[in-house]
Amino acid sequence: MISSMDNSKIKTLLKLKQSKYRKQEQEFIVEGTHLVSEARLANVLIEAYSIEEKDEYIQVSEAVMKKLCNTDTVVKELGLCRMLSKSNLSDKILILDGVQDPGNMGSLMRSACAFGFDTIFIGTGSVDIYNDKVIRSSQGAIFKLNFLFGNVCDFVKTLNHKVYGTNVVNGIPLKEVRKEEKIAIILGNEGNGISKEVNALGLDNIFIPMRNTESLNVAVAGSIILYEFGI
Amino acid sequence: MISSMDNSKIKTLLKLKQSKYRKQEQEFIVEGTHLVSEARLANVLIEAYSIEEKDEYIQVSEAVMKKLCNTDTVVKELGLCRMLSKSNLSDKILILDGVQDPGNMGSLMRSACAFGFDTIFIGTGSVDIYNDKVIRSSQGAIFKLNFLFGNVCDFVKTLNHKVYGTNVVNGIPLKEVRKEEKIAIILGNEGNGISKEVNALGLDNIFIPMRNTESLNVAVAGSIILYEFGI
Repeated sequence: MISSMDNSKIKTLLKLKQSKYRKQEQEFIVEGTHLVSEARLANVLIEAYSIEEKDEYIQVSEAVMKKLCNTDTVVKELGLCRMLSKSNLSDKILILDGVQDPGNMGSLMRSACAFGFDTIFIGTGSVDIYNDKVIRSSQGAIFKLNFLFGNVCDFVKTLNHKVYGTNVVNGIPLKEVRKEEKIAIILGNEGNGISKEVNALGLDNIFIPMRNTESLNVAVAGSIILYEFGI
Repeated sequence: MISSMDNSKIKTLLKLKQSKYRKQEQEFIVEGTHLVSEARLANVLIEAYSIEEKDEYIQVSEAVMKKLCNTDTVVKELGLCRMLSKSNLSDKILILDGVQDPGNMGSLMRSACAFGFDTIFIGTGSVDIYNDKVIRSSQGAIFKLNFLFGNVCDFVKTLNHKVYGTNVVNGIPLKEVRKEEKIAIILGNEGNGISKEVNALGLDNIFIPMRNTESLNVAVAGSIILYEFGI
C-alpha cells in the first residue's frame, strides 16, 4: 500500500492536477468508482487506484487518496487515463467557442452524447475538458465522445458540414431550421457569446424564440438545439 | 458611510446569509448592479447599498461590502429585497421535487421565464431559492416569476392542470405529448429523480429520447421540456 506522498506514482498523479501537465503527458485523472469503470470500458484506463485491497488496483492510504482528489466527499477509487483523439468527424459536430464554466462544459458533453453529436471541437479559450469538475459533470460522457482542439475559424473552413452560429441577431428560429444530414453547431462564451472572428465568417445563425428578452444558460440553449437536431 | 460591522443594518444583512433568517424575515440579498436594478424594476427592493456615494443608496466601506458578499469579485452594489408570493397560478407551472444544485435551480428559473412557466412550485427538499448562487445563476429571472412552496403531492392534488412527471419508465416521448393549455411539469432530484411519493400518484411521464442510456443534466432535460411546451 502506498502511503507516502513522495512515491513517484503519487507525485506524477498530483502533477496531473495541473492543466499543463495533463497536456504534456496526454493523461488525466478520474475520481470515483463509476468513472473508473467507464474509463475501463472505454479502454483508456492506464492504472486504477483504490483505498481497499483489490485485484488490478494499486492500493493507497486514505490520506493519499484524499490528497489526490478534488472533492470533499470520500472517493474510494481513482483512475489514471490516457487522452484519445481520432481525426474522423461525426455527421453532427458541436463546436465550443470559449465555453468557460466546467459545469456547462460537462452538461454539454452529456447532451452531445445523448443526441448523437459525437465529435466536439474545443476552441481555444474554452475550459480544459480534463478539469476534474468538467469530468464529474460529464458523468462519463467524456469517454464516449471524440474531441478535437484548435482555432474555431480554421476548423470551420475545413468542414463540408452545414455550420450554424448561435448569435441571436438575424437568427433563424430553431423550429424553422432545415435538418441537414451533416451539421455543426457553434456555441459561444457564457458572457460574450460567439467571438468576433467567428461572427465575421458570416454564418447563418439559429435562435431559440423566448418571451421577454431573457437569455438562457449556454448549456441549456445548446442542448435544446442539439435535441432538435438530435439522434 | 457605514464602516463598522457592528452597525445594526449590517448585522441584519449578515444574518440574511443564513436560510433560516431569510425565511423568518421574508427578505433576501442580491449582489451586483444588474440584480439591484432588476429588483428595483420588480418593486421588491427595500434598500440599496453601494461602496460609492450615490443618491438613494446607503454607502458602505469596501471592507463591509466584501464581508456582505459571497463572490470573490468586487461587488459595488447590493440590494435588500422582500420576498413576494402571489397565490394565482399561471397556465404553465414548473414543479421542482428536490432539485438541489444552485446552478441547476438558477438555470431552470431562466428557462421557465423564457418559455412562459411563470409559476414555480418549490417542493420540500429543494435548495433554498434565495441562496446567493441560485440568485446569481438565475440572472434576474427570480424577479419575474411567482414562487410557491410546500409538499409536491399536496400541491398536485389541488391542480386542474394536466400534470406530467419525468420518470423515464413508461414515459411518453416528448414530441408525442399533447400540448395542453394548462400544464404542469415535475422535475426531480439530480441523483434520485422524482420522489417515491410523487411517483405513487401515478401521473403520466414524459421522457426525452436519447441514444445510449445516458441521462441529461436536470436543468437541461427540464429546459428542453419547457421549450417544447413553451411561450
